[in-house]
Amino acid sequence: MKLSRRGAVEPFHAMDVLAEATRRRAAGRPVISMAVGQPVHPAPKAALAAARAALDTGRIGYTDSLGLPSLRRAIAGFYRDRHGVSVDPARIAVTTGSSAGFNLAFLALFDAGDRVAIARPGYPAYRNILAALGIETVEIEVSRDNGFTLAPAALEAAAAEHGRIDGVLLASPANPTGTVTGRQDLAALSAWCRDNGVAFISDEIYHGLAFVGEEATALEFGADAVVINSFSKYHCMTGWRVGWMVLPDALVRPVERIAQSLYISAPELSQIAAEAALGATEELDAHRDAYRRNRDLLAERLPALGFSVASPMDGAFYAYVDVSRFTNDSMDFARRMLAEIDVAATPGLDFDPVDGRHTMRFSYAGSYEEMVTATERIGAWLG
Amino acid sequence: MKLSRRGAVEPFHAMDVLAEATRRRAAGRPVISMAVGQPVHPAPKAALAAARAALDTGRIGYTDSLGLPSLRRAIAGFYRDRHGVSVDPARIAVTTGSSAGFNLAFLALFDAGDRVAIARPGYPAYRNILAALGIETVEIEVSRDNGFTLAPAALEAAAAEHGRIDGVLLASPANPTGTVTGRQDLAALSAWCRDNGVAFISDEIYHGLAFVGEEATALEFGADAVVINSFSKYHCMTGWRVGWMVLPDALVRPVERIAQSLYISAPELSQIAAEAALGATEELDAHRDAYRRNRDLLAERLPALGFSVASPMDGAFYAYVDVSRFTNDSMDFARRMLAEIDVAATPGLDFDPVDGRHTMRFSYAGSYEEMVTATERIGAWLG
Repeated sequence: MKLSRRGAVEPFHAMDVLAEATRRRAAGRPVISMAVGQPVHPAPKAALAAARAALDTGRIGYTDSLGLPSLRRAIAGFYRDRHGVSVDPARIAVTTGSSAGFNLAFLALFDAGDRVAIARPGYPAYRNILAALGIETVEIEVSRDNGFTLAPAALEAAAAEHGRIDGVLLASPANPTGTVTGRQDLAALSAWCRDNGVAFISDEIYHGLAFVGEEATALEFGADAVVINSFSKYHCMTGWRVGWMVLPDALVRPVERIAQSLYISAPELSQIAAEAALGATEELDAHRDAYRRNRDLLAERLPALGFSVASPMDGAFYAYVDVSRFTNDSMDFARRMLAEIDVAATPGLDFDPVDGRHTMRFSYAGSYEEMVTATERIGAWLG
Repeated sequence: MKLSRRGAVEPFHAMDVLAEATRRRAAGRPVISMAVGQPVHPAPKAALAAARAALDTGRIGYTDSLGLPSLRRAIAGFYRDRHGVSVDPARIAVTTGSSAGFNLAFLALFDAGDRVAIARPGYPAYRNILAALGIETVEIEVSRDNGFTLAPAALEAAAAEHGRIDGVLLASPANPTGTVTGRQDLAALSAWCRDNGVAFISDEIYHGLAFVGEEATALEFGADAVVINSFSKYHCMTGWRVGWMVLPDALVRPVERIAQSLYISAPELSQIAAEAALGATEELDAHRDAYRRNRDLLAERLPALGFSVASPMDGAFYAYVDVSRFTNDSMDFARRMLAEIDVAATPGLDFDPVDGRHTMRFSYAGSYEEMVTATERIGAWLG
């Protein structure tokens, strides 16, 4: 049977680890999963109540491809209240998770052969979706030297070395590094993109989860960025598959057209629940404070175990650590850690195909008890 | 702002009509929507109960990218019980609606420049997704002359005229024609694809909704077809966005890899509800009998209104009719019908870019009362 070349895209190793963790758990093993970025907390109470009420009233149907009008208005309200930015609800597209947001942004902005700059280490799905669509990835190493973020100088150097750049995608807070790119740096990046006719995609899915630094939205610097956000992380709604984009005017109709055929619409029940979740700030901020406790614990314990922290840990809920004292094959290390002590974490190769053989990512979106037990198990295992 | 060429893909006009119908309904208009293929019935009681129970137990999370193991096993059971075909659950991928199934099948099977044959008229998302991915569409006209289906002779003629064909995609029951391709014809098509090294994608999303003829699955003829199905239609779960694929062994891992990055997983709550829906045959067969009543009504009333039925109406829940007595611009006709009498239906251009200017598609998945009222309004409007 003939398979496509693009089907040879890399796996998202975290999902492979998740599948293996599921199998082990089903077999009765006491698995602690720090592999995927998934809050231990359920969706906010108001979201669950809204979903229950919708189940009682009957049919869950297709919505407009761009989402329920009331949810789009509520998201515009979120930008007004939280960021003081006015956004026309017509520019908001509700998506089936940020996964759909990335795919739609890439399809609407880029053709095969175009070139998009991303940070390395970074979220692997960027690279994998771009590859599936025939778009070239220009990976720019981020490190202590450049503040773990993408700055105009690095983009110019990359363009000089590799040729034209058509788009830049930056996450803040970033996965896996935890980098929070501040207002001034984000403004400079946004201006550079505008001045150079480069599309700017701002991944803001970890907004609400910054522990150090300022959390700016690209929308503060103009209406030409494509902003991608999600209800999965701060709002604790991973499995609901609902997120959103804020689009420049010119992109609204192209995204709508593509979404009509590729997605029809995001799940309606999730959209209804998401609208209610937007109001649950108090409950969700308490969860954020719990992540902060986890973070503080890991920031102390992981280095004590010999895993030096390899990036800021300022936001999101990941510790990205150097495990070169123990292995130069993070994939094998992850496999053995799961098989031998039932602790699941993600090999660095997911995030960094060049240097990821000696790094690992630990999600600290679980419970404090899980963090304690996992680090104890790892200590006993390594010692 | 630079937009991609592929963002210029055609709209899915039915979704544009839906959005306009939503606006009018919000403004208090008594809209009857026959535009999208959406059952008036809610999800089965057992599905709603399962969703409620899941909301009570807490976290709705990511599942394995290929879906909940229990749902994959239940779908395998469906093939055993309903079709007498044994399918390894490992070959089943749960998807975010059939929309994701098509996208994943196309990405895993075809590269840019490959050529896929589809029926014209046919489901517009095939054409639009293929175009977005840079895959060429070979549209083969189906008509009374060839039984409204794709047969080997027509594929050979198309290959002789246009060049190599890499894949064939056929729906049975078909949208919008209602064609049910029988066991013998499906076996012949399947064999032709196998003999010619052509990938065969069998769209079975309207299974369970055949009123005339035999409902065969491509799986009866071997394990090399890609079968796509959905909980949207027979199971009345459109807005839940959950479907499935049955894959040849060689395609399982490529589809899993692509799905990990493009979708993460289908919505978990929908997967839980879907598993319960598989057992609701009695309730769902009663809905099917209601569509049959609607179908019989429209088969009589539409021709009496001057809309001659342009294809079989043997399955699915669509009447595809010729409106050339009234217009040669079905788009304008649809717009006026909605604006003047609040009846929404889909212009034929969605399904047939060549001859769709004088056809319309009416969905009869609504209530009997809606069918009666809509045809009365149309009669008064035209008369």
